Amino acid sequence: MGPMVSMPDLSNLSPQPHVVIVGGGFGGLAVARHLHRTGAQITIVDRRNFHLFQPLLYQVATGGLSPANISVPLRALFRGKENVEVLLGLVNDINVAERSITLESGKRIGYDFLVVAAGASHNYFGHPEWEAFAPGLKSLEDALEIRSKVLAIFEQAELETEPRKQRDLMRFVVIGGGPTGVELAGAFGEIAHQTLKDNFRHINPADAEILLLEAGPSIISTYEPDLVQKARDALHRLGVTVRERTMVKEVNEGQVIVESDGDREVIKSSCVVWAAGVQASPLGKVLAQQTGAPLDRAGRIQVSPDLTVPNHPEVFVIGDLAHREQHGGLVPGVAPAAMQMGEYVASVIKARIHPESAPIEPFVFHDKGAMATVGRAFAVVQTRRWKFSGFAAWVTWLWVHIFYLTQFTNRVLVVIQWGWNYLTRNRSARIITGYSAAEGKPL
Amino acid sequence: MGPMVSMPDLSNLSPQPHVVIVGGGFGGLAVARHLHRTGAQITIVDRRNFHLFQPLLYQVATGGLSPANISVPLRALFRGKENVEVLLGLVNDINVAERSITLESGKRIGYDFLVVAAGASHNYFGHPEWEAFAPGLKSLEDALEIRSKVLAIFEQAELETEPRKQRDLMRFVVIGGGPTGVELAGAFGEIAHQTLKDNFRHINPADAEILLLEAGPSIISTYEPDLVQKARDALHRLGVTVRERTMVKEVNEGQVIVESDGDREVIKSSCVVWAAGVQASPLGKVLAQQTGAPLDRAGRIQVSPDLTVPNHPEVFVIGDLAHREQHGGLVPGVAPAAMQMGEYVASVIKARIHPESAPIEPFVFHDKGAMATVGRAFAVVQTRRWKFSGFAAWVTWLWVHIFYLTQFTNRVLVVIQWGWNYLTRNRSARIITGYSAAEGKPL
Repeated sequence: MGPMVSMPDLSNLSPQPHVVIVGGGFGGLAVARHLHRTGAQITIVDRRNFHLFQPLLYQVATGGLSPANISVPLRALFRGKENVEVLLGLVNDINVAERSITLESGKRIGYDFLVVAAGASHNYFGHPEWEAFAPGLKSLEDALEIRSKVLAIFEQAELETEPRKQRDLMRFVVIGGGPTGVELAGAFGEIAHQTLKDNFRHINPADAEILLLEAGPSIISTYEPDLVQKARDALHRLGVTVRERTMVKEVNEGQVIVESDGDREVIKSSCVVWAAGVQASPLGKVLAQQTGAPLDRAGRIQVSPDLTVPNHPEVFVIGDLAHREQHGGLVPGVAPAAMQMGEYVASVIKARIHPESAPIEPFVFHDKGAMATVGRAFAVVQTRRWKFSGFAAWVTWLWVHIFYLTQFTNRVLVVIQWGWNYLTRNRSARIITGYSAAEGKPL
Repeated sequence: MGPMVSMPDLSNLSPQPHVVIVGGGFGGLAVARHLHRTGAQITIVDRRNFHLFQPLLYQVATGGLSPANISVPLRALFRGKENVEVLLGLVNDINVAERSITLESGKRIGYDFLVVAAGASHNYFGHPEWEAFAPGLKSLEDALEIRSKVLAIFEQAELETEPRKQRDLMRFVVIGGGPTGVELAGAFGEIAHQTLKDNFRHINPADAEILLLEAGPSIISTYEPDLVQKARDALHRLGVTVRERTMVKEVNEGQVIVESDGDREVIKSSCVVWAAGVQASPLGKVLAQQTGAPLDRAGRIQVSPDLTVPNHPEVFVIGDLAHREQHGGLVPGVAPAAMQMGEYVASVIKARIHPESAPIEPFVFHDKGAMATVGRAFAVVQTRRWKFSGFAAWVTWLWVHIFYLTQFTNRVLVVIQWGWNYLTRNRSARIITGYSAAEGKPL
């Protein structure tokens, strides 16, 4: 197969082109890691000073891990690599005509190649006002707030003398039955049934009611029905009530209003977490306006087969911000896809620096399968060849995550922390910080 | 020696008296741990849901450890111990006539014995307005804020193009040359010279200026002069400038005004940390008003030889809130003193529950010595018999701290984390959270 993608005008390209990467997530890092030995000048721009291992963020939200266990300082990753520069800042604007980006601080940075890997945040489906009552789980701050809130609720229930209020306090709602919602609800169940056992004198944490609400007919709907049923059973054992075909109509202070089978119902809850949808970074819109690239409904850029923006072979979009169809479906917004995209983009840039190299094939996502964990020692795994669940699946899940983590620096400690948690059924990070347990709100 | 302390009226004392402990620090925990097998009903009241290993707080402030590494959930410590209740709340009032305390929430709790171990906070010597510009280091939130601020300053300096502004940004001031100030300044030096080495492209973190200001003639003045000199030398090697006989006259936005040898000087700094003095908990005042007990200048209660408040043999004050003289000096406000006081109070309460037991001797503090660490792999140790410094002292320091930590649950992980940091010269927890690096202020 010959080169299917257009080549940029290389007449102005320096032998050490400047590659600017917006976002230090899985996609952005993969580009830098596969490119830094080429002599290209690389600038990584991120709002935060660390890379976040987002698939384990729910473990921080539930006190199993500390923020530093799932974060790596970006500068530590590129320490001593003189051709890689890390720059902290928020990208406000992109100017593809001038080939430059502008930071919030006003600083302008020119580029030869631009890789936009700015990711996604929560999507409240046109109801941004719900965010105040149902925070999502995207940042470390989100995770710490959810952790403090959940722990503080048990403390308040312990002090509450009226049984009805106690019951209302101890009702947790997770909105969205995708992998994140399932993992979060499972971890809440684990906290209530195992971690906090015998910790209180006036309440039994196992009495907590945990609701997992899914609008569609099935949680984790990309899995096969028998695996989904196994996940439902595992959630049930942890005290999680799975409610499918249940549409959230409104979220406000202390309650969620849902509709299922045409019936409206008010669910009282002092802890509602949003795990229902993602919205691409606003940089998608900026790029679309500049280049005329089409956006999809979630704000993602519809990229060319080589992950560039149409007519701009020097501008790439990868990760959660990229909309790319394959085999009639979308390449999913998961870490492996972002990493594969990043590696691919690095190879494309390399090929353009060295035009004598092999022709560029279109990007193809190799799906190695999916997995989700439910509480301690249970997971479901589905690949093209296998599907299985239970403890073996959990061990697989653990190894895959450790394998990915080992690409960074603090892998050993995370493994030890997990082994420790597993052996002791403990969650040592269940401390309430930045939050007044007595008043039930942030300090 | 016979009993030197008065016995309370035991006529109303139940065989399972209710012991209320205010504060889950070293003192309060020691009482509970030495008393929980007696059948006494124990209630621990604390504002926070965790015990904090405060001697290592500076390690959190400098990215070496995570909050969960030096915190233990109070409920985890007393899990399944049915006679120990943990209650989250702020104590607003004490009524010694009624034998009850009142929480901020209005809840009243009666007691047979009360142990007030509420500790201390920063003392700005009559200038509370300085706190906004020079935060102290008492809570996890303090530590996380200092950590984010310090790291964000290097980020801002990296983006700054004017050399003079860069220099001003990278000037850190620690006020107070006691053990905390010395350890903090040493850790700042370690960050600048070792941790962040080769991390930046436009600044050299080792150019950071770190000033340790001490009003008195000597830092860590309870140590012998030769040890003090060794500590000074170790600080100097880490790039810390020690300025003794330097009195802080004013702290405001971005600067500290000092006076030394009669000269006033303005020191510009965007990061000033207060480590200069402590002020006893306001509960000292409440108790003094109720009982007529004398307060010292720092707001501590002057306790009787058995650590009770005069005329109230059922009310004990221990830890940083207690003023107790011994051999012409004060029992110091350190963790070992608080723990010994707690153990002593438990024995006094036991003796009063079982009057047939041995008579009660006055409290005596057994000083096992003091130690302070300066950066990585250097410490000074001074006991009655030995004094030494350097690597051996650091190993001693490490073992003593590990020994104390082993009384709790997460010791293994802390040891591993430290070994890791030591081997890799890394500080994996150097992540900026809850803080906008770009704007240089809390989110």
